[in-house]
Amino acid sequence: MTKKIAIIGAGAAGLHLGIYLRKNDIDVTIFTDRKPEEYASSKLLNTVAHHSVTIDRENSMGINHWPNAGYYGHYYNIGGEHPIKFYGDLKRPSRAVDYRIYLPTLMQDFEELGGEFSYEELTKEDLEPMSERFDLVTVCVGKFAFAGLFETNEAYSPFIKPQRALCVGLFKGIREDKTRAVTMSFAPGEGELIEIPTLSFNGMCTALVMENHFGGDMEVLMKTKYDDNPQAFLDLLLEKLKKHHPFVYERIDRKNFGLASSSRDILQGAVTPTLRQGTATLPNGKRVIALGDIHATVDPVLGQGANMATFSAQIIGEEIVRNSVLDDRFIEHIEARRADRVQCATRWTNFCLDALRKMPTPFMEFIQTMSQSREMANEFTDNFNYPEKQMDYFSNPDRIQKWCAKYS
Amino acid sequence: MTKKIAIIGAGAAGLHLGIYLRKNDIDVTIFTDRKPEEYASSKLLNTVAHHSVTIDRENSMGINHWPNAGYYGHYYNIGGEHPIKFYGDLKRPSRAVDYRIYLPTLMQDFEELGGEFSYEELTKEDLEPMSERFDLVTVCVGKFAFAGLFETNEAYSPFIKPQRALCVGLFKGIREDKTRAVTMSFAPGEGELIEIPTLSFNGMCTALVMENHFGGDMEVLMKTKYDDNPQAFLDLLLEKLKKHHPFVYERIDRKNFGLASSSRDILQGAVTPTLRQGTATLPNGKRVIALGDIHATVDPVLGQGANMATFSAQIIGEEIVRNSVLDDRFIEHIEARRADRVQCATRWTNFCLDALRKMPTPFMEFIQTMSQSREMANEFTDNFNYPEKQMDYFSNPDRIQKWCAKYS
Repeated sequence: MTKKIAIIGAGAAGLHLGIYLRKNDIDVTIFTDRKPEEYASSKLLNTVAHHSVTIDRENSMGINHWPNAGYYGHYYNIGGEHPIKFYGDLKRPSRAVDYRIYLPTLMQDFEELGGEFSYEELTKEDLEPMSERFDLVTVCVGKFAFAGLFETNEAYSPFIKPQRALCVGLFKGIREDKTRAVTMSFAPGEGELIEIPTLSFNGMCTALVMENHFGGDMEVLMKTKYDDNPQAFLDLLLEKLKKHHPFVYERIDRKNFGLASSSRDILQGAVTPTLRQGTATLPNGKRVIALGDIHATVDPVLGQGANMATFSAQIIGEEIVRNSVLDDRFIEHIEARRADRVQCATRWTNFCLDALRKMPTPFMEFIQTMSQSREMANEFTDNFNYPEKQMDYFSNPDRIQKWCAKYS
Repeated sequence: MTKKIAIIGAGAAGLHLGIYLRKNDIDVTIFTDRKPEEYASSKLLNTVAHHSVTIDRENSMGINHWPNAGYYGHYYNIGGEHPIKFYGDLKRPSRAVDYRIYLPTLMQDFEELGGEFSYEELTKEDLEPMSERFDLVTVCVGKFAFAGLFETNEAYSPFIKPQRALCVGLFKGIREDKTRAVTMSFAPGEGELIEIPTLSFNGMCTALVMENHFGGDMEVLMKTKYDDNPQAFLDLLLEKLKKHHPFVYERIDRKNFGLASSSRDILQGAVTPTLRQGTATLPNGKRVIALGDIHATVDPVLGQGANMATFSAQIIGEEIVRNSVLDDRFIEHIEARRADRVQCATRWTNFCLDALRKMPTPFMEFIQTMSQSREMANEFTDNFNYPEKQMDYFSNPDRIQKWCAKYS
């Protein structure tokens, strides 16, 4: 029996799924509008952490080309009158690679495994004919062209607008802390800065993911154009970092500070976190599957996007291989296996977006307790792999309290 | 932290849950209106097969008191112009024990583990005050008093009335076939007879579960009263068996044939298969959990009742132990883990009720293919443990066909 699978979108999720299927000798075409050679000259696409559960998937498929770029834990800095700094270990390293390197490399892996690319710009109207030609169509492209295809899951989509004014860039001139690690700097009232050791074109550099609060002093960084006056942008940035994220600022060498490789290393904007239904039914009755950002659009603050998307890709891949017919029962298996991870990536991220802005008492108590317990900090940090475990703690103030009681 | 759990109902599900919780040192009260000593003089309660997945649960809790009563497989007899007979192995034995022995024995186990019984007749009005006194109320009693508490899951409740006229009894005078096994005798147009080697008060006997089609020649057995004229009833039964279930009839010793121990060994009636929601919310906002028959009422034809109910009890028990707070997140975990097994026990049973009545072509082809392949018959037989695996084959005619293709 031959199964023919169409994947629309060549992001991490689409490529993971495509490669998994090729490893299992299944006929796959990935539809994308961007060729591998175009990535090197692209603007920064995003900043993405791959936690060890994602790296495990890469290892099992033989596509972990960056075994030495990992980081080992998280520093947590909470500003305010009495600043707090503490550290938590990841059990096994996480890793960030510039997707302008990551994606074309995996595209090559996919082609070497006999996968086919079709370079086209598609719209929703292409889905129905495609669903007649293929046994399954998976949509994993965040493009506007597919907006509205999958219905919003209202229960887990509490926000109707973006929660942070994002300014994200790859920088040089920032010294690593004692351990190669992410730094999460929380500036009450101003926003969060996630600093991620990242492999880019010139080797290791530093991603600064600035999650600025709307109405705060750092919001301006979302809209100030780097290209208009690079030095003025960098000066403004340094001024804000000094004021609001001193634990990051103190490691900056002002002389060498700047975008890591080129003026394309910066990305500004905002996303509205939204969870959507995992499938949609076309007018001809065929069902298409949502995967990745189009399924769950998460704010990048907790680095859950790739974790959720590649997990989902693996589940879909395994079920394509395992099911004799790609019917409703096949979709039941997928949803049963991926729902909690995908939902919790969204729910936990949304919970933190809210809690980090309002700093309610149970959350502050949690941070205080964790700052005094390395064991608790380790658990919280490693659970970035498992958003569903985080939700076991954060879904209810009583749970946070019982967790704290265990460590205090 | 102390958790206090209320279980309403002392059937297999309630007792499994209660015993699991006591093994984990959790405070449990089981509410029931029947004392252990009342069972010996009760009318037959049901006929229940425990497949090896259920026996595993009993072994792990130290409550398998009947290790030698097991049976080893299924004989399948399909009548009609060209009768078919074949056999399939269970990987590990299943077992049936008269619940008038099973339940009071487990009640004693529960009490020996420090569990408490409260002997009361309860109604829906008792739930709200009870939910204030306990951290969790689980309802696993099929009584009329709780009807309507849990909403019907319409998607998986296709029937609005009973599908079979049931006549169930424990008999003596039926010789076992070569192997100690269940016999499933399908008489097209008339009904199914499931013969189960069963341990009752006088040792091993034979349960005959007659699943008679409404409008067929055997329907009369649902309504004919044994007590009115025992010999007439037995004569009528023998006449019907001879005509419609000859592979069972041929092993009957007419001289010794009769109810196994007493006139209480017979049960007649009918059930409407219904799947209900797994939880209900009381007026005070507290949620109660459905377990067992009140969650999923299945026709006994495939012996899925105890399988589904004790599986569910185990999941609930594990999640009570694992979750620090018994809140909505706790319920999410339960539903995620038990939904497919419970739904598929229902769906597969309902599928077979329909298919065995109508004998559609893909189903007949499946039986034909299986009759020629011992390997397929073994797989089908052992999958009585795993209704979700059966649904992987029966949810779609294409799947049945692909399964047959593998074996033919």
